[in-house]
Amino acid sequence: MSDTQKAIEYAHNNREKFIKELTEFIKIESISTDDAHKKKVEEAAEWAANHLRNIGIENVKLMPTGGHPVVYGDWLKKPGAPTVLIYGHYDVQPIDPIELWETQPFDATIKGDYMFARGSSDMKGQVMATLNAVESIMKTGDFPINIKFLLEGEEEIGSFNMDSFLPANKDLFKADFCLNPDAGAISADEPTITFGLRGLAYFEIQIQGPSRDLHSGLFGGTVHNPAQALTELIAGMHDANGTITLPGYYDSVRPVTDQEREDTAKLPTTPESYLEQTGVPALWGEKEFTPALRTGARPTLEVNGLLSGWTGPGSKTVLPAKAMAKISCRLVPDQTATEVHKQLVRYMQEHAPKTITWEVKLLNESPWAITDTNTAGIHALAAAFETVWGRKPLYRREGGSIGVVAMLQTIVGIESGLVGGSLPDDNIHSPNERMHMPTWYKNIDAFVHFFFNMK
Amino acid sequence: MSDTQKAIEYAHNNREKFIKELTEFIKIESISTDDAHKKKVEEAAEWAANHLRNIGIENVKLMPTGGHPVVYGDWLKKPGAPTVLIYGHYDVQPIDPIELWETQPFDATIKGDYMFARGSSDMKGQVMATLNAVESIMKTGDFPINIKFLLEGEEEIGSFNMDSFLPANKDLFKADFCLNPDAGAISADEPTITFGLRGLAYFEIQIQGPSRDLHSGLFGGTVHNPAQALTELIAGMHDANGTITLPGYYDSVRPVTDQEREDTAKLPTTPESYLEQTGVPALWGEKEFTPALRTGARPTLEVNGLLSGWTGPGSKTVLPAKAMAKISCRLVPDQTATEVHKQLVRYMQEHAPKTITWEVKLLNESPWAITDTNTAGIHALAAAFETVWGRKPLYRREGGSIGVVAMLQTIVGIESGLVGGSLPDDNIHSPNERMHMPTWYKNIDAFVHFFFNMK
Repeated sequence: MSDTQKAIEYAHNNREKFIKELTEFIKIESISTDDAHKKKVEEAAEWAANHLRNIGIENVKLMPTGGHPVVYGDWLKKPGAPTVLIYGHYDVQPIDPIELWETQPFDATIKGDYMFARGSSDMKGQVMATLNAVESIMKTGDFPINIKFLLEGEEEIGSFNMDSFLPANKDLFKADFCLNPDAGAISADEPTITFGLRGLAYFEIQIQGPSRDLHSGLFGGTVHNPAQALTELIAGMHDANGTITLPGYYDSVRPVTDQEREDTAKLPTTPESYLEQTGVPALWGEKEFTPALRTGARPTLEVNGLLSGWTGPGSKTVLPAKAMAKISCRLVPDQTATEVHKQLVRYMQEHAPKTITWEVKLLNESPWAITDTNTAGIHALAAAFETVWGRKPLYRREGGSIGVVAMLQTIVGIESGLVGGSLPDDNIHSPNERMHMPTWYKNIDAFVHFFFNMK
Repeated sequence: MSDTQKAIEYAHNNREKFIKELTEFIKIESISTDDAHKKKVEEAAEWAANHLRNIGIENVKLMPTGGHPVVYGDWLKKPGAPTVLIYGHYDVQPIDPIELWETQPFDATIKGDYMFARGSSDMKGQVMATLNAVESIMKTGDFPINIKFLLEGEEEIGSFNMDSFLPANKDLFKADFCLNPDAGAISADEPTITFGLRGLAYFEIQIQGPSRDLHSGLFGGTVHNPAQALTELIAGMHDANGTITLPGYYDSVRPVTDQEREDTAKLPTTPESYLEQTGVPALWGEKEFTPALRTGARPTLEVNGLLSGWTGPGSKTVLPAKAMAKISCRLVPDQTATEVHKQLVRYMQEHAPKTITWEVKLLNESPWAITDTNTAGIHALAAAFETVWGRKPLYRREGGSIGVVAMLQTIVGIESGLVGGSLPDDNIHSPNERMHMPTWYKNIDAFVHFFFNMK
């Protein structure tokens, strides 16, 4: 029996153990955006560090970042063999609106083919798939290559300490290739390699009208309602076609090539599949691009939150003093968050009325990334997928943002293979997040093959 | 010494006792819009009923309304003399945003000339001013006329049970005139009689986009963000002049007469006074009307609340499934809430995109009112003010809505004298609500004179 077969057999025989461990990991409420959960995030880092030690990884340590710590570990006993950096994040999104969850968000619940829990799909499940693959090889023989781990706790809040952490630890993370299972697949039957990611610029806009909440009867008609002023400003940020109107917004956006139009046309993501996945009555967006291009190759401006005045039950006839919006832009080559921040401020300067005052804050940012698909790492991944799924993977650009991918490229000089078992209907960032177990098992096997393919 | 003088003397000698009683009344957190406070609202009704009994009012009872009870009482021992119905409400507005209060909202705190507390100005203080005046006469002699009391607990939520309660109790509340101290004065030096009130139609708009919150990276660009759709719809409800665009909105609005333009020109409410009271950088609204006319004689459409997506600290890259707005219209003759509800629904039918679904709910309503200023009641009030202030009162229309005024007019057939000691800068419906004590004392005296003037 080959080393690969032994490792695969171990993986298959230990699925219950793997599920038990993932369930423990998920139980730790590591919501990185919420200061009240700071201790829990730390606890999740400790858990991951201990697990690395248990499966035979060496030099495991928690590294301070100014925010939540990075978990490092390595196994470097194959001089001459390539080194793979395994990336993951142990933090998760908030769970609100909590009332829409059908199970306890942090008690992993298996129903049929799915495990339901916050972090199951994004991405504690994916992190554990790589660790389970490493363990399966470690416990059944000799590891074929050198590996390092970078598990961060701030991915869901824009990895905003990475741009100071990575330069300071460049050499420690040097590797030939980064395995990043945070990108997901197009469907359970279609292994996918993502070669492009959108960046992110996340803003908060504050509008101030009167110095205090006013009685809408006594002052309504003489004062510009700040909530109304906010709606007027936001409404003007798109035209009727869904094109963004911030001054100069598309100046540095690379045009979509004919090649990419052809490639994305091959993807199974059709208008129908988007309708089905989202439940909207009709799709929206720039008519001159397909939905797949609009989510992959085009930048966006989304309202992530709105708050003003009385939002409780019943009615309160208040004319609010303030209105707030959280707005984020998904960025594509060659946009930068700094440039988009300036464009948003200029839009406000040009359009905000004199009847209110305003403030725009850049809350966080992450750059876009593009990976060369013609490298040993990508070839090893593609072969691994073909072995397990019996078909070649699909290649796509993805709409999400993983800040660390671009930083590893620009700061450390490593390209990332973006894969993973997360599926489009996993409800990541939403209530009832779930992970497709059969895809998870297949990925564990695929990662075993990947490590041997890298030899 | 005349009966009037005796009563005035009693009022002056008992100011500390009056403050103590008002403080007790304010302590009861009778927030009518909040179900969690239902018991407190009931408690405030009981407190008011007991106080009526203590000052010599008869047949005092709590009357069920389907919502919060009405407190009734009467003293009808002057056959042939006129009967005055004294109106008041014992419910108050919510206290949020609580962090902006500089004192405990329900612990009346006196600083200089002001008492700070929720309900001090709107309107427990005003209710107690009438009861203190009645007590001052009762304890020092014989009451000159017949009186009845109607103290409701749902004014701040639109008095929505009154339209079933009043028809069922028409005869009980029959009177020659209603004294309603819920309208306030233009300034401490300018006693004011309000002869017109705006009505109210309060709506909640719900927008639904995707069936669940989505990841803004995976779906941004293909799905019409419901928060954005909501801002587009609300932004379209006014034109650049601040004129409301709901179809047919002004069809039944009575044009402002030259006489009223002249009268309101006499009022001390100037653009400068509005700027000072509100703290806005610039005023807003229909250029062709003065601020006083815009708040009195013109209808409005205000955003009272906005809520969608992530509004907590930090960032969450969610594409929200829902967005909500609370919107209310102040109505003028001859608009009706039913008609405006239809206009809002028609606006939504004409402008809501196919990319979302929507719902409009009418949460509550109250009709506008106009009072004839040439009646015995108004003359008695005017004379009382002139005696106490040494000047004739000002006459104005007011922007607020007091549903019961119109209902008393149409259902029971009584006109109301709208007065009171509430001042424009009392922060009613806002943090740090306050009442101007010197004006309160003057109103107690004025009400004593009023009752004798009605004889």
